[in-house]
Amino acid sequence: MITHPAYAVDPWCLRERTLHLDVLAQSESVFALSNGHIGWRGNLDEGEPHGLPGTYLNGVYETRPLPYAEAGFGYPESGETVINVTNGKLIRLLVDDQPFDVRYGEVLSHERVLDFRSGLLSRDVEWISPSGSGIRVRSTRMVSMVQRSVAAICYQVEPLSDAVRVVVQSELQSNEALPGASSDPRASAILDNPLVSEEHRCCDARAVLVHRTARSGLRVGAGMDHLVDGPQSTNMSVESAADLARITFTASLEVGERLRIIKFVAYGWSAQRSLPAVRDQVEASLAGAVQTGWAGMVDEQRAYLDDFWASGDVEVVGDPEIAQAARFSLFHILQAGSRAEGRAIPAKGLTGPGYDGHAFWDTESFVLPVLTYTAPATVAHALRWRHSTLEMAKERATQLGLKGAVFPWRTIVGAECSSYWPAGTAAFHVGADIADAVTRYVSADGDDAFERRVALDLLAETARMWWSLGYHDREGRFRIDGVTGPDEYSAIADNNVYTNLMAKHNLVCAAQIAERYPSDAQERGIDSTEIAQWLRAAQSIFVPYDEVLGVHSQAEGFTDHEVWDFAGTSDDQYPLLLHYPYYDLYRKQVVKQADLVLAMHLRSDEFDSGQKLRNFAYYEAITVRDSSLSACTQAVIAAEIGDIQLCYDYLGEAALMDLDDIEHNTRDGLHLASLAGTWIAIVAGIAGMRERSGTLAFAPRLPVGITSLCIRMMFRKRCIRLELGAESTTYSLVSGEPVELIHCDEVFQVSMDRPVRKLNASNPSAPAISQPYGRRPEKRCVQR
Amino acid sequence: MITHPAYAVDPWCLRERTLHLDVLAQSESVFALSNGHIGWRGNLDEGEPHGLPGTYLNGVYETRPLPYAEAGFGYPESGETVINVTNGKLIRLLVDDQPFDVRYGEVLSHERVLDFRSGLLSRDVEWISPSGSGIRVRSTRMVSMVQRSVAAICYQVEPLSDAVRVVVQSELQSNEALPGASSDPRASAILDNPLVSEEHRCCDARAVLVHRTARSGLRVGAGMDHLVDGPQSTNMSVESAADLARITFTASLEVGERLRIIKFVAYGWSAQRSLPAVRDQVEASLAGAVQTGWAGMVDEQRAYLDDFWASGDVEVVGDPEIAQAARFSLFHILQAGSRAEGRAIPAKGLTGPGYDGHAFWDTESFVLPVLTYTAPATVAHALRWRHSTLEMAKERATQLGLKGAVFPWRTIVGAECSSYWPAGTAAFHVGADIADAVTRYVSADGDDAFERRVALDLLAETARMWWSLGYHDREGRFRIDGVTGPDEYSAIADNNVYTNLMAKHNLVCAAQIAERYPSDAQERGIDSTEIAQWLRAAQSIFVPYDEVLGVHSQAEGFTDHEVWDFAGTSDDQYPLLLHYPYYDLYRKQVVKQADLVLAMHLRSDEFDSGQKLRNFAYYEAITVRDSSLSACTQAVIAAEIGDIQLCYDYLGEAALMDLDDIEHNTRDGLHLASLAGTWIAIVAGIAGMRERSGTLAFAPRLPVGITSLCIRMMFRKRCIRLELGAESTTYSLVSGEPVELIHCDEVFQVSMDRPVRKLNASNPSAPAISQPYGRRPEKRCVQR
Repeated sequence: MITHPAYAVDPWCLRERTLHLDVLAQSESVFALSNGHIGWRGNLDEGEPHGLPGTYLNGVYETRPLPYAEAGFGYPESGETVINVTNGKLIRLLVDDQPFDVRYGEVLSHERVLDFRSGLLSRDVEWISPSGSGIRVRSTRMVSMVQRSVAAICYQVEPLSDAVRVVVQSELQSNEALPGASSDPRASAILDNPLVSEEHRCCDARAVLVHRTARSGLRVGAGMDHLVDGPQSTNMSVESAADLARITFTASLEVGERLRIIKFVAYGWSAQRSLPAVRDQVEASLAGAVQTGWAGMVDEQRAYLDDFWASGDVEVVGDPEIAQAARFSLFHILQAGSRAEGRAIPAKGLTGPGYDGHAFWDTESFVLPVLTYTAPATVAHALRWRHSTLEMAKERATQLGLKGAVFPWRTIVGAECSSYWPAGTAAFHVGADIADAVTRYVSADGDDAFERRVALDLLAETARMWWSLGYHDREGRFRIDGVTGPDEYSAIADNNVYTNLMAKHNLVCAAQIAERYPSDAQERGIDSTEIAQWLRAAQSIFVPYDEVLGVHSQAEGFTDHEVWDFAGTSDDQYPLLLHYPYYDLYRKQVVKQADLVLAMHLRSDEFDSGQKLRNFAYYEAITVRDSSLSACTQAVIAAEIGDIQLCYDYLGEAALMDLDDIEHNTRDGLHLASLAGTWIAIVAGIAGMRERSGTLAFAPRLPVGITSLCIRMMFRKRCIRLELGAESTTYSLVSGEPVELIHCDEVFQVSMDRPVRKLNASNPSAPAISQPYGRRPEKRCVQR
Repeated sequence: MITHPAYAVDPWCLRERTLHLDVLAQSESVFALSNGHIGWRGNLDEGEPHGLPGTYLNGVYETRPLPYAEAGFGYPESGETVINVTNGKLIRLLVDDQPFDVRYGEVLSHERVLDFRSGLLSRDVEWISPSGSGIRVRSTRMVSMVQRSVAAICYQVEPLSDAVRVVVQSELQSNEALPGASSDPRASAILDNPLVSEEHRCCDARAVLVHRTARSGLRVGAGMDHLVDGPQSTNMSVESAADLARITFTASLEVGERLRIIKFVAYGWSAQRSLPAVRDQVEASLAGAVQTGWAGMVDEQRAYLDDFWASGDVEVVGDPEIAQAARFSLFHILQAGSRAEGRAIPAKGLTGPGYDGHAFWDTESFVLPVLTYTAPATVAHALRWRHSTLEMAKERATQLGLKGAVFPWRTIVGAECSSYWPAGTAAFHVGADIADAVTRYVSADGDDAFERRVALDLLAETARMWWSLGYHDREGRFRIDGVTGPDEYSAIADNNVYTNLMAKHNLVCAAQIAERYPSDAQERGIDSTEIAQWLRAAQSIFVPYDEVLGVHSQAEGFTDHEVWDFAGTSDDQYPLLLHYPYYDLYRKQVVKQADLVLAMHLRSDEFDSGQKLRNFAYYEAITVRDSSLSACTQAVIAAEIGDIQLCYDYLGEAALMDLDDIEHNTRDGLHLASLAGTWIAIVAGIAGMRERSGTLAFAPRLPVGITSLCIRMMFRKRCIRLELGAESTTYSLVSGEPVELIHCDEVFQVSMDRPVRKLNASNPSAPAISQPYGRRPEKRCVQR
C-alpha cells in the first residue's frame, strides 16, 4: 500500500497531487530524471524549498581522505565521493515584487507527473503571491535519452486573473550550499565547494561555466541556451561569473498572454580533455539540441521509450499498486543504465548522493539481470565499464597477494573505496557476481565480439583470482576461507556457500569460454594446465552441509552458532547494525539479507527440492531483511517452494521500497537493486523464470491478488511475450526466430505465428514458513 | 649478543662508554627512570641532542577523536593518549660563551651507568668547547621509589685545566616540541601543545608551573627546588612564565673548584583537586625532599632496592649477557610497577610514548606473573587499579549486550581506546587474563582482604561476561564464537582454545571464590544457580581438537586453513602485518605469537605430554614471532617438551629485545612484557616452575651455556631460594615458615634450617622442532 497520500496510483505514471513538504526529499528522488549519464533530482524549478539539491554527472567525483585511527596494509587511503555539480535546473521567478516560493502565498493547485512513456516530468501549479498576484506555472523537464549530454525544460508562466509583471531568471549555479554536510571538517571542506572555476562566458541567451575539481582533477563544463516566446514587452539580459550564469527575462503579461522559455542544458566532463575542448563540446551539444528543438526532443524521447516498453513492459492486472510500481521500477532502472556507456551504474543511480555515489555488486546481481532481458545493450555497456577498470583490479589483486583481478567493493571509477575491509575487501564474491552477469548476458544475447574479448577477460581474471584465493585441503576439497558473503551480519567466514558456488560457476564458465576461443585464450596466457586447474577447483569446491539439521550451513560452522534472540529484540532496534555491535551480529545466527537463499536462486541446480524447502524454512526464520537486497530473492524462493502468497508479500515490499520509503532513506536516492527486485520477484518469482542450460524455463503461478500478468522480455534477439492467467500461461513471440522454452520442465517451441498455451502447475500445499519475531513482511491483500 | 657497542656487559648495571647518536633514542628508553608514578626518559640533562624528549605521569593523558570513514555501533569515539608533560630534567649549561652540546666541540670521555642496586642513573662527561674551554660534568639522577612524587638530580660541573665561567639554567619546560608528531592534523594540534597554563610562580630557588589538559581536564603541577654549593662568586636568579620556569646559576670556577646543584623535582596531578590544592601538594613534596636531602634520598632508594633484590634476584652464572639482561629486566619491571598504586602499568611502562601509553593484557599475563613472585605488593595495586575501572567495564559490557564486565583492550584510565574491533574488543580473553592474574596473586600471596573484595568482584564479573558471551549448543558444548585470541594473525574465530580454557579457569575460580565467601557472594547477587551455571559452562567448554593431525586446533577450523607460504616470504617482509593485508593473514595458518602454546603454559594441566609435544611441534612450524609477547612462552614450552637449547635461544631473544633493539622500536619505549619474559623463560622455562594446586612445582634443567642459576622468589610470605647446577638443584628457604614444594613430581618440604638438594631430571632426547623458514631464533652459544 502506498502509505503517503502524496502519490496517486496510475498504471503509466507517478502523480503527485499536493505538495507535501515532509516528503520533499523523497519526492526529489522518485521524480529524479536521468539517462545514466546526467542525473537531475526532482527539485522544484525555483530551487527552494528543497530537500537536497542534486545534479550528478556519472563519473564526476572528488577524492577525500579515508581516516583510520589504526591503519592496516592495503587499506585504501582515499575514497571517491559523488559531488553535486552545476545546477542547470534552476529557473527562478519573480511575480510583481514577490519571489515565487510555495512556502509563501497560497498554492491553489499543484500537480507533478512523471510519465513513464514520455520520459517527461511535468509540473502544473497555480499560485497566489502574498500580495495577491496569481499565476500558473507549467514546466516540463527531461533528461534526454537520445542526446545524452542534454537536458531541457519547457517553462511557461501566465497570469491567472490579473495582469502581472514577471521576471524569470534561468541559471547555472555552481557550489550550491547543501544541507546536512559531513561532520568531518576535512571532508566537509572538500565537498562543500567542490568546483573551482576555470572559465565563464555568456552571449545572447547562452552561457557556459567551466570548473574543475580540486583533487580528482576533473574538468566539468555546463552550458545553457534558451528559446523564448512571450509578448512584445519581453526583454532579456545575460551575465556570468565564476559560479553563476544567469539569463534574465522580463515581461508584463496580460491575462491570456504567457511567457514560454525553452531551456536547453548541456554538460561535458573529462579527466583529460582541455578547457577549450570541454567548453566547445558543451556549446556544440547545445547547438544540436537547439536545432532539434523542444518538440523534436520530446518526440525522440517518446520513441526511445516506446521501443523499450515494446520489449520490456510488465503489465500487472488486478493489483494497481504493483502495476504502477513495476513500471516505475523499470523506468528508473532504464534511466540508470540507458546511456551510462562506459561508466558505472551506482547503487542509487544518479538520483541522490547515498552511498557516496558508489557502485557495488548490486549492479551485477540485481540491476543487470533485469536489463539483460529488457534492454540488453545497456548491459554490454555496464560490463564494458567493469572491463575498463580491469587494470586497476589487477593491481589491487597484486596488492592483496592474489592472481587475476579483485574488483572493488564500492567505487565510482574503479578504485576500492571501502574503508572497513571485513564488509568490503573480504566480500570477494563481487568478482563472481560480475562473472555471473557476464555469462548471463552472453547466454541471453549471444554477442560474439563481446564474448571473445570482454567476457573472456573478465571471466579469466576472476577465475584466476578464485584459484589463488582458494586452496585444496588435505582431503582435496577446494576451500575459500576467511571471506564475507552477501549477508553483512556475518563476516570473514570459511566456505560461504554462496561464494563457493558462485566461484565454482565462475571457474567453470571461464574454462568453457577459454576452450571455446582457444586462440584468444592463448593470447591471454591461458593454457590447458590453467584450465584444468580451474575445473579441478570447481569440481572439488567445498559446500558445507549440516547433516543433523539437514540444511546447508551458510558458511562453515554457521549452524553451530547461537541463534539471535529475536524475541528479545524490539521493533525499534532494527536495523540491527545501528543498535548492536558487529562482533555480536557476526557470531550469531542472524541474517541481514538473502545469502544462502540467493545461492538457491542464482545457482538453482546445485540444490534439490527437498534442500530448497528445508533451507528456505531454516533461513527464513533467521533473516531480518535489514537490507533492501533481500525481499526480492526471498520472493523468488518462496514461489519456488510453493508459498506464492509469501512471494507476493515480498514482491510488495521490494516494489514499494521507495514509493513507501520503507527504509526511511529514499531521500538519499532510490534503491535501484530493490527496484530491480520488483521485476525479479515478478519474473523469477511469480513466473518462475530460470536460465537452464541456455534456455529459459518458466513455472508460472499467480497469487490471488493478481488477475493476470503480461511480461515482455528479450532473449537472443527475440521478444517473448508471456500472458499469465490464473489457470494457464500463453507464450508468444512478438519478434524474431522461433525459440525453445521450458514450461514446468516441459520443452516446447514458440514462433511468431504460433502462440502456445500451457496449464499452470497446481499450487502445492504451502509449507509452514515463519520469519523472526516482528519481521514478517506485510501481508499483501487482494486490492479489488 | 649485545650487537651495539654502546652498552657494556656488567652484572649489576647497564653502562654506556661512548655516546652514539644513532642509538640515542634507544638509550633514552633503556636508561629511563621511573617509579611507576613518574617516568623520565634518559634524555641528556641539557635537553639536546635528543631522540625523543619524554616526561610521563601515570594517568596523565589527553583525549583525541578516533576517526572512522565507516563507523559502527559501539566503536569508541575518542581515545586516550599519553602526553609529554612538563620536563623537569632540563639543566642547560653555558661554558664561557658556548652552550654545552655534545654535537659541537670535543667529547673527551663519556660514560652513563644505570645501577640496578642504587636505582641511580649517573653520567660522567669531559668536554672541550669549540673555543677550547674544558669542563667535567657529573650528574646523577633518580626517580624516587620512596617519595613517589619526587625525582632529583645531583649536577656538578668543574673546569678541566683552566678557569671557566659557567651559567647553569635549571628549568621546567612545558609543551616541548616533539619530533615526528602525528600526520593527522587534528591529533597533532591536540598533542603538540597539550598543556594549558593555569599558574606559574617562583621564589628563591623554587618554581612551580600548573597546567591543565584541554580536553581530558586534568590538572598537572610541576615544581622544582634547589640546593647549591659553589664558590663565593656563585649567583642565582629565578623567573617563571606560562610554560617555562628557570633558575639561573652563574659562577666563575677556578681549577679545583666546582659548582654543585641538587635539583628536586616534584609532580602532582588530579582530575578533581583544585589548582591551589595541586600547587600546594607539589610544593609540599618539594619541602619533604629538601628535608631528606640528596644523600638521604640516595640511601632510601638503595634500601628499597636492597629489599627487592634480596627476595627477587635472579643470578645467572656462565652467560654474562643473560645475567645482565635478567637484572635489567627485573629492574625495569620493578620501576614500572613499584609505585603505580591505583594506576595502570602500560605496555611500555613510563619509558616512552609507544602504543599511546596504553595498558593491554600484557600487564596481567606477563608483567604481573613476575611481580607476583618478586614484589607481590605491587600486584595488589595493579589489580586494584583494574578493580577501580569495574564500573566502566560494566558499562562497556552493557553497551556490547553482555553481562558482567568487559575490560578494554587498550586504555589509560579504563575506557576502550581500540578503534579496530577485530583485534580489540573481540579479544575478550583480556577478561580471563585479569582473572588469571587475580587467582595467581591470591594463591601466591594469600591476601585475604583482597580476596573477598577485589578478587571476588573481578572474578565474578568476568565470569558473568563469559557466561553471557558463550552458549550451550545442541550437543551441550559451551561455545565461545567469534572472538580473537592472543594470536593477532587470526581474528573473529570460533572456540579459540586459549580463550576457552582461560574462560573455563575464570568460571571455575569464580565459582570457588563465591563458595568460599558465601555472604560476600550473596551481597553481589551471586546465588547457587549462577554458580552452577558457571560450573556447567566450564565443564562443557568446547576445546577443538584435530583428530587426524593429533593436535589441538588453535580455534575451530584453524588446522583446515591453508598454511602460509613461508618459503615465499623474504626476511624483509616481516613483520608480516606491515606487508600483507589482514584478510590474508587471518585466513591462513600463520601465528604471530604464542596462542595455543601460551594455553599450554598457563593451563598446563589441560594437556597431556604427548599433546604438548605434538602441539608444540605443529605450532612452532607456523609461528613467526612478529610480536614481542611470544619468545618467552615458546621458551617455556620448549623446555617442557625437552628442547632446553631452544628454550635458551628463546630466552636470549626475550632478554635482549630492548638491549639489542630486536624489533627496531625500543626508541618508543621498552617492551615490558618481553622484559618480564626474561624472568618467565628462566623461571618457568629453565627451572620449569608451574603453580600446581596451590604449590610451586619445578623441573629444572640447565642449558649448556649456563653454569648455574640462583633464583630468589616470594611465595606465601616466604622467600625461597633455588640454586640450579648442572646436575642438581638446591632449594632453601631464606625467610618464612616451612613450605611444600614439588621437584619433578616429587613433593618435599623445605625450611630455613634445612635446604634440600635434588637431582635434576635427565635431559630427554630433544624432538625435532623447526620454525618457519628464516624465523629460527638466533642460536645461543656458550659464551665462555
